[in-house]
Amino acid sequence: MMLDAQWIVGFVDGEGCFHVGINPHQDMTAGAEVLPEFTVVQHQRDIQVLHALKAHFGCGVVRTNHGDRWRYRVRGLEDLSQKIVPFFVKHPLKTRKHVDFIKFRHAIALMEKKVHLTRGGVEEIRKIAAKMNRGSR
Amino acid sequence: MMLDAQWIVGFVDGEGCFHVGINPHQDMTAGAEVLPEFTVVQHQRDIQVLHALKAHFGCGVVRTNHGDRWRYRVRGLEDLSQKIVPFFVKHPLKTRKHVDFIKFRHAIALMEKKVHLTRGGVEEIRKIAAKMNRGSR
Repeated sequence: MMLDAQWIVGFVDGEGCFHVGINPHQDMTAGAEVLPEFTVVQHQRDIQVLHALKAHFGCGVVRTNHGDRWRYRVRGLEDLSQKIVPFFVKHPLKTRKHVDFIKFRHAIALMEKKVHLTRGGVEEIRKIAAKMNRGSR
Repeated sequence: MMLDAQWIVGFVDGEGCFHVGINPHQDMTAGAEVLPEFTVVQHQRDIQVLHALKAHFGCGVVRTNHGDRWRYRVRGLEDLSQKIVPFFVKHPLKTRKHVDFIKFRHAIALMEKKVHLTRGGVEEIRKIAAKMNRGSR
């Protein structure tokens, strides 16, 4: 299944999620690990759409989520910064999810500068992450 | 906001719903009223997307749904048969929602022949409607 760029934008406007997780991690200098991810969840009946997204972006994995739902997820910083972010810069989202994406892109840019490896940097990213995904779903 | 056809397909693959309701109605010859509808529900923060869909299709209404959620809905048989159905015939859905759409289109075609105004016709459409929207959401 070949996917049109605008179809992907529409589908992600509906079903996609940009998230930046921050997990406490005593062993790390920064005191926490920053985990950005782009995900799309679907019922297993539409797993072929998740595989088509994976093929389109050339990165990420399709795994089981909960029960009969499956998830396409991209977590690698290089994949996010080189493939996912440029796609949605070129093809902007049309819903308020675009605002989440702008914050996500900001967090990714900071991580590329290795800002997240310091305590101050983690706090900076935490403030950005706290403003994301505030719309009810 | 101008919407690209493929964006609409992707968004409806994620968020749209094709439904055929059948309400008992003693006063009608057929014993029931057949109510087909195409709907897209969004949080109020994205109400502008619903208005953009309404503008694109040139039919339907945007109304409050439940709480802070809003709904774009098309119910008129002529609007469904002349505007909504031809759009998704020309631009096919990519998820299993396409299967629901095929059944929806069948029900609309029967209604155009006024089949739903007889008891036998209502039963024929009821069988089609019973096979729709079976995927969990």
